[in-house]
Amino acid sequence: MRPEEAYADLIKRWREAALLQSCAAVLEWEQQTYLPSEGAEHRSEQLALLAGIHHQRITDPRIGDDLQAVEESGIANDPLSIEAVNVREIRKSYDKSTKLPQSLVEEMAKTFSFAQQEWAAARREKNFARFQPWLAKSMDLTRQKARAIHPTGNLYETLMDDYEPGAKGDDIAKVFEKLREALIPFVAAIQDSKQQPTDGILERNYPIDKQQFFGEMVASEIGFDFSRGRLDTTTHPFCTTLGPHDCRILTRYNRNFFNESFFGILHEAGHGLYEQGLLPEHYGTPMGEAVSLGIHESQSRLWENSVGRSRPFWRHYYPKARGIFRDALGSLPMEDFYFAVNKVAPSFIRVEADEVTYNLHILIRFELERALISEDLSVEALPAAWNDKYQKYLGILPPDDALGCLQDVHWSAGLIGYFPTYTLGNIYGAQFFNQANTDLGGLDARIAAGEFEGLLGWLREKIHRHGKRYQPVDLVREVVGADPSPEPLVRQLHAKFDELYGL
Amino acid sequence: MRPEEAYADLIKRWREAALLQSCAAVLEWEQQTYLPSEGAEHRSEQLALLAGIHHQRITDPRIGDDLQAVEESGIANDPLSIEAVNVREIRKSYDKSTKLPQSLVEEMAKTFSFAQQEWAAARREKNFARFQPWLAKSMDLTRQKARAIHPTGNLYETLMDDYEPGAKGDDIAKVFEKLREALIPFVAAIQDSKQQPTDGILERNYPIDKQQFFGEMVASEIGFDFSRGRLDTTTHPFCTTLGPHDCRILTRYNRNFFNESFFGILHEAGHGLYEQGLLPEHYGTPMGEAVSLGIHESQSRLWENSVGRSRPFWRHYYPKARGIFRDALGSLPMEDFYFAVNKVAPSFIRVEADEVTYNLHILIRFELERALISEDLSVEALPAAWNDKYQKYLGILPPDDALGCLQDVHWSAGLIGYFPTYTLGNIYGAQFFNQANTDLGGLDARIAAGEFEGLLGWLREKIHRHGKRYQPVDLVREVVGADPSPEPLVRQLHAKFDELYGL
Repeated sequence: MRPEEAYADLIKRWREAALLQSCAAVLEWEQQTYLPSEGAEHRSEQLALLAGIHHQRITDPRIGDDLQAVEESGIANDPLSIEAVNVREIRKSYDKSTKLPQSLVEEMAKTFSFAQQEWAAARREKNFARFQPWLAKSMDLTRQKARAIHPTGNLYETLMDDYEPGAKGDDIAKVFEKLREALIPFVAAIQDSKQQPTDGILERNYPIDKQQFFGEMVASEIGFDFSRGRLDTTTHPFCTTLGPHDCRILTRYNRNFFNESFFGILHEAGHGLYEQGLLPEHYGTPMGEAVSLGIHESQSRLWENSVGRSRPFWRHYYPKARGIFRDALGSLPMEDFYFAVNKVAPSFIRVEADEVTYNLHILIRFELERALISEDLSVEALPAAWNDKYQKYLGILPPDDALGCLQDVHWSAGLIGYFPTYTLGNIYGAQFFNQANTDLGGLDARIAAGEFEGLLGWLREKIHRHGKRYQPVDLVREVVGADPSPEPLVRQLHAKFDELYGL
Repeated sequence: MRPEEAYADLIKRWREAALLQSCAAVLEWEQQTYLPSEGAEHRSEQLALLAGIHHQRITDPRIGDDLQAVEESGIANDPLSIEAVNVREIRKSYDKSTKLPQSLVEEMAKTFSFAQQEWAAARREKNFARFQPWLAKSMDLTRQKARAIHPTGNLYETLMDDYEPGAKGDDIAKVFEKLREALIPFVAAIQDSKQQPTDGILERNYPIDKQQFFGEMVASEIGFDFSRGRLDTTTHPFCTTLGPHDCRILTRYNRNFFNESFFGILHEAGHGLYEQGLLPEHYGTPMGEAVSLGIHESQSRLWENSVGRSRPFWRHYYPKARGIFRDALGSLPMEDFYFAVNKVAPSFIRVEADEVTYNLHILIRFELERALISEDLSVEALPAAWNDKYQKYLGILPPDDALGCLQDVHWSAGLIGYFPTYTLGNIYGAQFFNQANTDLGGLDARIAAGEFEGLLGWLREKIHRHGKRYQPVDLVREVVGADPSPEPLVRQLHAKFDELYGL
């Protein structure tokens, strides 16, 4: 086969596998939205069947042949060409899928499924001992997985590569350390401040249909295209892409908590804007896929926090919000509301944490999981190590392990190296927002005028349209002309919270 | 392979194909409910991919080998045994799928897709000439399909076998003729009656959320299990099964027309009750599938008409309806409402027709499509033949072909032999209802008390649980001890309408 033919065949096979995967994505989306309770078992069978066919296709030896033929030719020599990017990424994926022995894949599937059940039970019972052997087993299998993929590599980096390609553990550790040094005294100072937001504003009566209306309106106005997507209700909010013109965002509503759905929608819409900004002509190939979880999270956090929790944003939207939620906000001044949505306070549960303390939750997990995977920290020593760090970083001591090291599902599911992408997202997001402000000028004024096209256009141009062309760190350098750095994030937080809390 | 092993292998393959098919069913359901407009093209590609994989699997030669091994053994000798039923039906399906040349399958797919578009345009333009060549082409391909399946068979019967297995055209013609003889003077007498329902009752203000609430409540009370199914909104109502414990019914709402959603929901819930009554342990095999479209329609019509349009039903539900739809029904006596939902009047559009005239619409289509397929009627002569029959049977002359022979999509999609199943459903439904009344006694009193478990249990026992064990006609004989006959339907209609219209 000529290399051009091999490349065409490769892309055809890869696209068809992606098409099949997108069928599974529809079933998974439906599982989280509309599936009747008794339909769950059959849905698992459907998904297992599709996963099996998909796996068969992406490990088809003809893909290996195509890759080799293309790699041996010169047609993908320019490393930033479409062809080179697609070949590089498909090679990586193909090697990973074919290197894992079937027996390990099956054992992981079985073990992680059990471990998640045991984790859920242990959390309910606040009983770490119940989860401990399963955590040990999950860690062990995850190490085996990393060794199968890259026998001599750094375990943590091999694992992280699934979520943040090319990420270096030590580089991230340095960046996170700087962030930690900045955040710990910052949080303490906020805690000590006499200026605090009024309690209870966000817990008033926010009727769900109005939250839905307001959330959809704002998502649409920042640029989420509802002819190419939907917003639905679910238990654990997420964003998923079902086709090149079909992106679904999901949220949950709490009648007595404004933030839950509103910032949830902004967050998921941020993910959705990235997905909708990928080029449809590259759909089903790496050039049509997001760079990494960290870059993805940078988009959601940028819209949720840099935009959605800013004063200019509420200057524009607060009058509308007050018109819609009259019971809750009728006579409340904007500044009180703005302060309320920006309340900072240490707390035990990561997913409920504010913009500032959130990153300390992540840093703790990053430090602990690196130590767990390298066996510098034993599984049984985890609860004590966890509590120790919460005490040191956030000044609070979890009263039990359910509010401590049992709160997240990730480790039970073998997701090691996933946590840092959340804070990388916050760091990248602030770097991007800062650069957009430099490039476009007057972002605050634009946001206060409800003009978001400039910012979205900039993100599309600089980030979205490139798909997987750049590795995450290279993309950051390309866009902001500097290495990943926590400084813009720290500056952004100070600019907002020093004033709010009178620091 | 031992025959037992061959049978096990056969069932395993068939079930897996059904599982794959059920994935496509989820995608199709979602296409009709929640899919954003721009997602349509990708959805077609997803469905085409799944259809391709499914076709490959159900035509796998190993299925042929399994069938042969089982057929040559004695393990499926008892024709009503599970094994025999599954083998008989899989054989039939396998032969049909493997007998159709790939070229014909592809030509049909392409032509029917174009023909449907041209049909839609022709209907919009009220221009039969535009559709005529496509109708001719569809008919020609449909004949080719019938000849490929059964070279020497009767064309119409071969086609009808897809929808009503084992149906004989001449037998149906005889039954339909009797029905026609009874209905034509009956409709004329109703038209001439001085007793007529009050106009406009059903076109009052019925808020959609209340229709939804009322419809779901009634569907649930007649026995539709919402833990194993859902009710959603769509453009063209239908019922679809996505798994052994997952049946979806769909309806559409019209704020100013009560019947649209309410009787639509009862109709689809009737289908749904059948699907929910199939035995889950046979899911994915013929023993877990409905007998035929005609038997399926008997269930929907029984609940919609025999139950839902009866006086005892409204004796039970009218007080509730009046409480819910206070604006529309506040001071209206039940009898006026009952007469309104039972209004009979000839009209042009089949899908809007009442319980009595509906069958005449079907009889016309049955007579015409038989003549078209056998070429006793030419395609160009269709409009005149159509109008002639409407004049003779219903006493009305369609003012244009959009209200005449262009109204239904079926023929453009090659669905020949499908129409009669609608009236067979009405006929079977009345026979079953009549028999249930004999077996259970006092059905009217039960319905008036809102007790539906007896009737549903009878249907489950006599019909649902048997899957495809019996051919449709044999099932009717088994259940009512007689051949298919229009008499119970005609009696049921007279019992209701003679009184309402004072005949």
